[in-house]
This record gives sequence, C-alpha cells and structure tokens, in this order.
Amino acid sequence: MPVALVLESARKLALRPIDLDLTVGENDVRIAMDVVGICGSDVHYYRHGKIGPFVVTAPMILGHEGAGTVIACGEKVRNLRTGDRVCIEPGIPDFSSRPSRIGLYNLDPSLTFWATPPVHGCLTPEIVHPANLVYKLPDNVSSAEGAMVEPLAVGLQAVHKTGVSAGDVALVLGAGPIGILVALSALSAGCSRVMIFDPASQKLDIAAQFAGVEPLHRHHGSIADQIARASGGWGVDIVYECSGAAAAFDGIADCIRPGGTLACVGMPTAPVPIDIVALQVKEIRIVTVFRYANVYDRAIALLEQGKIDVKPLISATYPFSKSIAAFERADAAHPEDVKIQITMR
Amino acid sequence: MPVALVLESARKLALRPIDLDLTVGENDVRIAMDVVGICGSDVHYYRHGKIGPFVVTAPMILGHEGAGTVIACGEKVRNLRTGDRVCIEPGIPDFSSRPSRIGLYNLDPSLTFWATPPVHGCLTPEIVHPANLVYKLPDNVSSAEGAMVEPLAVGLQAVHKTGVSAGDVALVLGAGPIGILVALSALSAGCSRVMIFDPASQKLDIAAQFAGVEPLHRHHGSIADQIARASGGWGVDIVYECSGAAAAFDGIADCIRPGGTLACVGMPTAPVPIDIVALQVKEIRIVTVFRYANVYDRAIALLEQGKIDVKPLISATYPFSKSIAAFERADAAHPEDVKIQITMR
Amino acid sequence: MPVALVLESARKLALRPIDLDLTVGENDVRIAMDVVGICGSDVHYYRHGKIGPFVVTAPMILGHEGAGTVIACGEKVRNLRTGDRVCIEPGIPDFSSRPSRIGLYNLDPSLTFWATPPVHGCLTPEIVHPANLVYKLPDNVSSAEGAMVEPLAVGLQAVHKTGVSAGDVALVLGAGPIGILVALSALSAGCSRVMIFDPASQKLDIAAQFAGVEPLHRHHGSIADQIARASGGWGVDIVYECSGAAAAFDGIADCIRPGGTLACVGMPTAPVPIDIVALQVKEIRIVTVFRYANVYDRAIALLEQGKIDVKPLISATYPFSKSIAAFERADAAHPEDVKIQITMR
Amino acid sequence: MPVALVLESARKLALRPIDLDLTVGENDVRIAMDVVGICGSDVHYYRHGKIGPFVVTAPMILGHEGAGTVIACGEKVRNLRTGDRVCIEPGIPDFSSRPSRIGLYNLDPSLTFWATPPVHGCLTPEIVHPANLVYKLPDNVSSAEGAMVEPLAVGLQAVHKTGVSAGDVALVLGAGPIGILVALSALSAGCSRVMIFDPASQKLDIAAQFAGVEPLHRHHGSIADQIARASGGWGVDIVYECSGAAAAFDGIADCIRPGGTLACVGMPTAPVPIDIVALQVKEIRIVTVFRYANVYDRAIALLEQGKIDVKPLISATYPFSKSIAAFERADAAHPEDVKIQITMR
Repeated sequence: MPVALVLESARKLALRPIDLDLTVGENDVRIAMDVVGICGSDVHYYRHGKIGPFVVTAPMILGHEGAGTVIACGEKVRNLRTGDRVCIEPGIPDFSSRPSRIGLYNLDPSLTFWATPPVHGCLTPEIVHPANLVYKLPDNVSSAEGAMVEPLAVGLQAVHKTGVSAGDVALVLGAGPIGILVALSALSAGCSRVMIFDPASQKLDIAAQFAGVEPLHRHHGSIADQIARASGGWGVDIVYECSGAAAAFDGIADCIRPGGTLACVGMPTAPVPIDIVALQVKEIRIVTVFRYANVYDRAIALLEQGKIDVKPLISATYPFSKSIAAFERADAAHPEDVKIQITMR
Repeated sequence: MPVALVLESARKLALRPIDLDLTVGENDVRIAMDVVGICGSDVHYYRHGKIGPFVVTAPMILGHEGAGTVIACGEKVRNLRTGDRVCIEPGIPDFSSRPSRIGLYNLDPSLTFWATPPVHGCLTPEIVHPANLVYKLPDNVSSAEGAMVEPLAVGLQAVHKTGVSAGDVALVLGAGPIGILVALSALSAGCSRVMIFDPASQKLDIAAQFAGVEPLHRHHGSIADQIARASGGWGVDIVYECSGAAAAFDGIADCIRPGGTLACVGMPTAPVPIDIVALQVKEIRIVTVFRYANVYDRAIALLEQGKIDVKPLISATYPFSKSIAAFERADAAHPEDVKIQITMR
Repeated sequence: MPVALVLESARKLALRPIDLDLTVGENDVRIAMDVVGICGSDVHYYRHGKIGPFVVTAPMILGHEGAGTVIACGEKVRNLRTGDRVCIEPGIPDFSSRPSRIGLYNLDPSLTFWATPPVHGCLTPEIVHPANLVYKLPDNVSSAEGAMVEPLAVGLQAVHKTGVSAGDVALVLGAGPIGILVALSALSAGCSRVMIFDPASQKLDIAAQFAGVEPLHRHHGSIADQIARASGGWGVDIVYECSGAAAAFDGIADCIRPGGTLACVGMPTAPVPIDIVALQVKEIRIVTVFRYANVYDRAIALLEQGKIDVKPLISATYPFSKSIAAFERADAAHPEDVKIQITMR
Repeated sequence: MPVALVLESARKLALRPIDLDLTVGENDVRIAMDVVGICGSDVHYYRHGKIGPFVVTAPMILGHEGAGTVIACGEKVRNLRTGDRVCIEPGIPDFSSRPSRIGLYNLDPSLTFWATPPVHGCLTPEIVHPANLVYKLPDNVSSAEGAMVEPLAVGLQAVHKTGVSAGDVALVLGAGPIGILVALSALSAGCSRVMIFDPASQKLDIAAQFAGVEPLHRHHGSIADQIARASGGWGVDIVYECSGAAAAFDGIADCIRPGGTLACVGMPTAPVPIDIVALQVKEIRIVTVFRYANVYDRAIALLEQGKIDVKPLISATYPFSKSIAAFERADAAHPEDVKIQITMR
C-alpha cells in the first residue's frame, strides 16, 4: 500500500499507508509525484476539517498543487510519454456538460477536485490522472516551478476574466500568495503598473522585489488617496481584490476609473456590504473568479519565456518525510512565508 | 418672463414666472416643449428636496423627460430644422473629456443634467439645448412616446451593458417604470423569455400585458424555485435588478446560470450585503448602469419599427396648468400608475 | 435491413436497403425520423458527388436537417425519454478536444457530420445519436419546424458571432434559405431593421413577407446608395454576406458604418478580392461563421416563443417514398422555393 | 516668417520660409518642436506627391511624428505648463461627432491630420495644437523616444483592437518600423512569444535583438510549416499583417488556430484575394486598424515603465538643417534603417 499524507480529521495529520486504486485507464497517465505545494485551502482543511459545505468525514489525502514525472500511459494517450516531467490540473470536469460546452469547464457542477472531500489529493508518491489534464513542463521550468502552476493559474484566470489592455494600471488588494501571483499575472498581461496593498509590511516587501510592483503602505494615507495621487485623480483600470477581507471593499469604487473593473478573487467568509450606487455612478463592473479553465498551457508558456518568475515565492521546501512539519509551518502563517513546498522523492 | 413648474424647496411646488436665458448659441436649438414625463427622481426631489449629495438650495425647474418642437436653430445646426418634433437627451457632457473619449460620455464628471441642482429642468414652455443632443421623432412616434425615450434609454443602456444573445432568458426584479422598460428592452434585444417579479401584484399585471413578459408571483414559491422550475435547474442568463431593494440581492446567485450576469439598475439607498462567494462559484459578473450614452437614436428606431410599445405605460396625462396635481398623483404612488405625463401646450 | 435515400455517386440516387449499425450505446438514443429537410449541400453532393475536398467514394445516405421521435434510450441517458419529439444536432465533436474546451466545439477537427463523406446522413427511418446532441421539441413546435432548426442554427450562429446591440441596422446579402434565416435571426437578436438584397426578385418577395425585413431591389440604384439613403449616410451596423458571390464584396465597405462588422456566412467557391484599405479606414472587422455551437436550445426557444416563424419557408413536403422527386425539385432550384422537406412516416 | 521643410511637389523638398498662423487659442498650446521622425507616409508623399486620394496640390510641411516643449498655453489649458516636454497626437477630431461619441474618434471623417493635404505637418520650429491632444513626457522618456510615440501608437492600437490574452502567441508579417513596433506592443500586451517574418534578413536581425521576438527565416521552410512546428500544429492566436503585401495573405489561415484573429495593419495598394472559406472553417475573424485612439497615454506609460524600449529602432538622427539629406536617406530605404529622426534645435 502506498504511503500518503492523510488528514484524518481537523488537526490530525498522518503519514501512513492508504489503499488507492492506481489502475491506468486508456486515457490516463500514472505519475510519480515530484513536488507538491501547500495551498491555503490545505491548511484550512487541516485547521478546521472543512471549508464551507465541504466537510472531511473520512480520511483524505491533502495536496492539489503538484508536479511529477509520467511513469505509465494509457493506450490512447498521445500527448505524453513515460519520462515526461509534468504538472497536473487537479479538477476533472465532464467536458460534455452544459458549462463545459460554453468554455466554462471550471463551473461544471460534476467536476471533482483533488483534496476536496471526498476526493483524495496528491501528497502520495503516485497518482493516476486523465492525460488531457496533464501538461508537459519545458526543460527550463523546474518541477518546483511546475508545482506553482496551479496557484499561478488562478492569477491568470483573474486577468483573463477582467481582460487587460496594454498600459492598464491595476491595484491588487492582499499580498498573500494569490495576491502576488495575480500581480505578476497582471504585469504579464500588459499592465504598465501594478500597485499592491497589504496591512502586513513584510508581505509588501516580498511583493516589491518584483519589477513593476509598487507597494502601498498604509502609513502613506488611505488607499484611495494614494491611488488618486498616482493616477492624477483618474483611478486604476482594474482592482483585483485578493484578500477576502470585508474591509477591502470599503470605498473601493473611489480607487477605480469610470468604466473600470473590480475583480473578486479572494473569498470572503460572509456577505460583504457593497455600495452599489458608488459602483453605478462610474459604471464599474465586477468580475468574479473561480479556479481556472484553459490557462495551464499559458501559465507554462509564460514561465518558459521568463515573463513570470515564481521562484522567489518558494519560501521553504520540506522532504515528504517531514510533510507534517511543513504543514505546521504553513499553519504558523509567518508573514515572510509565501509558498511552502514538499519534495516527494 | 416664462412660467415654469418650480420646486422652491421640499414639498413646495409653484407654477410661476422665472427668469431664464433662452439665447440660442450657434450649435443650439430652441424648443417649444410638448410633453414632459414625471420621473421618480422628480418626485424624490419634490418629497425630500434632495437626492443624496444633490440638494435643492435654490428654486429649480423640474422635469427631464421631454419632447417638443424646434422653433429656432443656431447657425451651425445641420441636423434639425424649425418645425421638427424632437426628444431631448437631458445630460450635456464635455465630449472631449477623458470618459467621453472612450465612449462613456455619461460618466463625464462635468456633465450637467436637467433638474439636478443647480441645473433647471424642462417643465417650462421653451428651452434651449445643444442640437447634437436633440433627436428628430419619426412621424409615427408621438410626442408622448417621445417623452418616454428618456426612461426607455435607461432600459436600453442596461441591455447594452449586459449584452444579450438571441435566445437568452432574463429575470427582472422590480416592476416599476424602469423595471418594465428594462423588460421590454431585454425582449427587443433578443431575449426569448423575460420573467419579472414584484411584490405588488398590480404592477405585475401591468407588466404581464406585454407579450413575452412572464410575471412571477410570490405566492408561487421563492423566486429561485420558480426560476429553477422554468429553466430546468440551469438559471437565467441575466438578472436585471431594478428595485433597489436590499432584499432583492438575497439568494440572487441561485437564480443565475454559471457564467451569467447580474445587472444593477436600481439604486439602493444604502450598502447591500452581497454573497461574493455565491457569485464566484458560478463566475457571475455584475454590470452596473448609470443613465445612458449613445442609445437615444436606437430607442427611437425601436419605437418607430414597433419593436417596443411604450404607450400602455402612460397612465395619465395632465395639462401644464394642472402640473402640481400631476405631481401630487405621482407622489401618491398608486400601484396601477406607471408613468404620469404633462402636456405643455 | 433498413431502407435509405442513398447517393451512389453524382446524380445517382437510390431508395434502397442498406446495412446500418443501430446499436444504442449507454449515452445514445435511437430515433425514428419524422421530417428531414433538404439542404443546399445535399443538392451539391447530388449534383457533383463532392464538396471541395469531401468526395463521395462509397454510397452515402443524404440528409442532416432532421426531426424525429425517441424510440430507445441508453441506460445513462437522463435528458430524454421514449416518445419525446426531438431535433438532432448533426455534428458529433470530441468535447474534450482543444477547440471544444474553449467553447468552439464546431471547430473540432475530429468532428463527424451527417451526410459528409464518409458519414451517413439521416434520410432513413431510424438513426442512433448521442443523447447530448438531441433536443426535445416543445408541444407548440412541429416536427417540420424542428427540421428547420439546423439551418436556423446557422443564422443564430451568425448573429452570436457578430453580436447585435438592440437597435442595430443590418444588411443581408443573398435571400436564399440561409440569407432569410440570418435576417430573421438578426431581427430576433435586436435589429430594428434588416435590409436584404438579392438579384432574384422572387426571393426578395419571399423575404419581404416577414415584418421588419426590407427588400432592396437592384432597379432602385446601387446597394451602397440605397443604404446611404436609408441610414442618413452613416451605413449599417452589420452586413451579413450570405450569397457567397464574389461580386457581393465589391464596394461592401461603403455600406458599413465606421467600426461596423462584416459577417461572412456564404462560402465563395474561390478567393475573393477584398479592398483591405476600404475596411481599414472604417476599422471594419470581419467575422466568419462555420456551422454552429451552443445554439440549438436557443433556436428552439425562439421558435417556441414565436420570436421566429420558419413555417412560411417550407415550400413543399414530399413523402419518403417520393424523396428522389424531392431532390429533383430541389435540384431545379425554382426561385420561389425556399425549403423542401421530406416526411419519413 | 518661420522656416519649414516644405514639399513643393513630388521629389521637390525645400527648407524655406513659410507663412503660418501661430495664434494660440484658449484651449491650445504653442510648442517648440524638438524631434520629428520620418514616417513611411512622409517618404511616400516625397516620392509620389500623393497617397491614394490625398494629393499635394499646394506646398505642404511634412512630418507628423513629433515631440517638443510647450512655450505658451491658452487661458483654459489645465493639463500642461510652459516648459513641459511633450509629444503630440497629430490627428484633430471633432469629439462630438458620431464616431467620436462611441469612442472611435480616429474614424471621424472631419478629422484633420498633420502632413496630409491640405494640412501642414510639424517639420518647422513651432506649432500650435489643441492641448487635449498633447501629452507630457516623463523625465525618463527622452524627446527622441517621445517622437516614437506616434508609430508606437499604431502598434498599441493593433493590440487593443485584437485583444491579447496573457500567454497568446502571435505572428507578425513584415519587419519594418510598424511591424517591429507591433511585435513589441504584442509582447507588452501579454504575448508569451512573438514570431516575425520578413523576406529581408537584415530586418529580421534588427527585430531579433528584442527579447521574446523570434525571427522566421524563409530558408527554414514555409511560414505555415514553421508555425506548425512551433505550435504543435495548433497555430498562433493572432497574426498581425504589417507588410501590406498581397503575398502575405496567401495561406495565412493555415498559420492561425481555430477561433484566432488576423489583424490587417499594413495597407495593400490594391484589393487582395482572400480565401474566405479557409477563414470560415476556423471561424477566424479579421480586425482592421486605422491610426489610433486613446492610446497615447498608454504608450507613454509603457515607455516610462520600461515595458517597451524603442531606442534601438532609432537608426540615425539629422539636424533640421540637414533634413533634406535625412529624407534622401529614408528614401534610399536601407534594410538596416528603421527610423530616421530630425532634431529641430
């Protein structure tokens, strides 16, 4: 029996054998995992044993940000070969469902997603996955970077949903992993400037090391005032709200230009009071983002071409044997930490 | 001195002489007003002497839904002639402002708008206006219909902002004048079905007389349940929120299909709690609407071609001499009343 | 063995037994065909034994515009029941292909399409098809109308690809079945006016019987001049080129407003000289259309709601036993004929 | 009387005094020109005395790519001050015209454009211009770069018209100044890769010095084959045709992915045969580009932020006194030359 990092229930992690079906269907590949990143949702399941309606009622393997190496291919697989280094899109939709047919396969209600109860994740040496959701990594993209494709895909989904015109100016609220990846995505998508705000100055320092990312510190005045000064009173073209904090929405319309866009990436834990009229008088539209569709290949291409560099975001790497320690560190939420990864072999 | 319907202060209306500059500039026309409709905002100023930050601090002529007849043209005017029956777009922007240059002249902060302090409205026999905001009415569109173009333009702005694909299904929340005009606009824009909800059944009865408009009554169950039944569980493509009621936003995501749209047309009086996550998991976008731009010619064409019929919405017509009585009736807010108009001569 | 209308080779049709596999897979339905329309492509295969690179090298059943009744359902089928009257989308894509994933399943190179060599069509009493490409007809939509959904879907695809804003004015070039269905689709999608041109006045007479469709006759002057008069020199918002005639492209930019759209629906038999600069100085974009995706449900909804009426386009109906005569009539191409249909039982 | 570089007629240039009205209106600024670039259209007028319908029938000052310094401001000017270094948008529209109102002021038929008969250009020490078409240059953008904003604006207009999603792959046909600026614009707008083709290998060498621009040489096989190899058979997302050569359109659809875009930037001298069906079967759309609107501020921001570097494109600089020699060099069309500029003081 393979070993896996199993969440037995809230706060109870075990590195222990588990029974898994690793049969390779004709359109599947079997993958030896190389690197797995820890996501905020993994930590949330670890802390609470649930996220909203998704409750861990049986032992579940964590992890959905994964890169590995193909070790077996189903007979109909044409896009991959044994030995290919790959990263894996963790949601499996029904491509013939009604949302999928209109290009929104991420919204298919029948989609299953790694490490979302009752589906196991990838913190185990080998997994099986449909080959058409597995993407070959170029030689110059490491497996550690490959394991960053999943969160980067969220950033790219955000910029695809808002659209970006070359020369746009954006503001990102929240400088956690997703906020920074959204900022880098926005720059790669044509923003001339991306400002970013976070109450934690250590997070801003990390964000500010990327060329083109301008930190807004709270001791320099209100965000709206700083934006007004930076934009000659016009406002930014797009705000990406990545904090999920209700406070972030307060006065947000003041930061946005007439006809601009607010993207909701962060997931607030409760309904947020929104000043509709403040949005209306500027005809601001709100775009919402859920996971991603059709962006993995783009994320990999941008890494390959050096348009986005995720390496500075990997704060620490633990061997699989120390993966419980890795979760404890992630749970500690040091403001200097962005992404903790686990090497599987 | 011309006579006008003047709001002296809250609840104080007078039909009395007032000093007005009626000089015709080289790009202006002078218009003898024929019909003026009473808008909810006129009534709001009448009741409260203000709308939000706009306070009536000096006597102000009411009225901004107007049709009339051109009686003089500035020397550079080419699009109109004396004798033309016309309707008038009441907001005057700077067409070279930054929002105007990108096609959003309705969002120009320097725009002046009839019957918005300190700018006078059109409830007076003659007005002067820039000719490029005055539109000739076809022979088969009456001046009473012409005075409906202004509120209809709000409906068309809403459908332009959301976009409509032929065969879309829409839900309109709120069956006041704007709600019904949005419903008619949505049908004209290609919706195969438009459902409409209002707690007042008399308003639903008025809406339901239009072919293609389906009333949802509250005694038939929750709106979400009725939508689920009507759409096989998929949801509508677009919700047009026209009530401005906070309650309308409760559970609204349940009514909308994955990838669908919520348009905010009604203006809530306070921030509204919004369940962001419920929107995110369906990647629903929110579009906001403020007045209109570039739709007057389209509204007139749709009336001319019989694609939209606004005549059933004109509930009562008063002569100018009885315009105070007209306002008292509008203020009474009978649920059977949609639009009260005043004939000026 | 079932009987079918088989094209043996160019000009050789036979109503004769043919060996067909009618096994119902778990996601399939078996359908007793009720009505099948004859498409221009069917006639083209009949005349020439090929269309471009698609050559009839083995006997092939014709017909791809079909409506029928479900007589058996695979075990996993949930959207249909035995006895349902249905129409059938004749192209079967791989929904997980790269074009399909971005919502363009009509562009999947692996798609198979009825009556396109070597795939059989539906002019045979029973067929088997994937249930997720079969659509239930409402009670008030006849099977004859159901067999019109396929060509109507082309018209709706055209208006979806161009987008239509309520109040747009369109020009359709070519008043054959597709041209008229595009005109009706454009009206249903929000056009206030649709002008249509065809050198054959009988075809214009047929088109002109639909409210909102305005015929342009060639003896009234050039098309550009007629458009200029009708639009005050501005031009139409969209031209739908449905004739496939090279001559139709001559001077076409003169008919279109600045920033307008040209949709290529008709398929010219050879490269067409295009005046690129004439398009550029108005920044006109060209949209091309190939079959359809995600429009069958919308077409049916528009028929159900009476927004589009295809019944006047059904010129003649033949029993299956006379289907060779039906093809001979279609081949004769009477200008008064729009659509010839065959009833299968 | 000021001196200017005057085109008397084809091939006849004179640096001589000319009578100019330099009155500063209330919304105007007077500018001392610093740097003026020579455009292909300037050279075309020099060679032929005309471009299409625009014929030089009276002496005309050349030049429309200009940067300078504000030396006087009209009384209503707020956006500029004396001493500001600026670049100038050379087309003056009527912002209240019908195309301008919908955001397309570049398509206003009444627009006047520098160095387009009968309007003078800017190759003269001082000019007067509306302040709202004059843009302040940041300290880190030189006037030589400022004079490159005009051709760069064409590149940005192209990417705005096509739209670019982060990670797109583009192909540029033609490596002249516009082709290279389109390539740089496409990279700045989010393309992960931009391939470029030109029959002249020297031009490709210039293009290839920019990171992310990949030259396609004709001795490596057909363009379509090279694209197929580079994209795994999928094709590029966007082709920007910048050569204006009819041959460039031959087989162009083979290079583009299903659902992709062809942008026509280059202006062919005669109608070009287009294989419509090849575009249709992939539903490729064609976007056309004419000058620019609303992009000057964006171009300047991208230069300021170092997202686009135009300095390597400035091949040679001549003093105003040698401007005839500058035109002779531009006329010689050395393949190593990209942009020739003239310093005015």
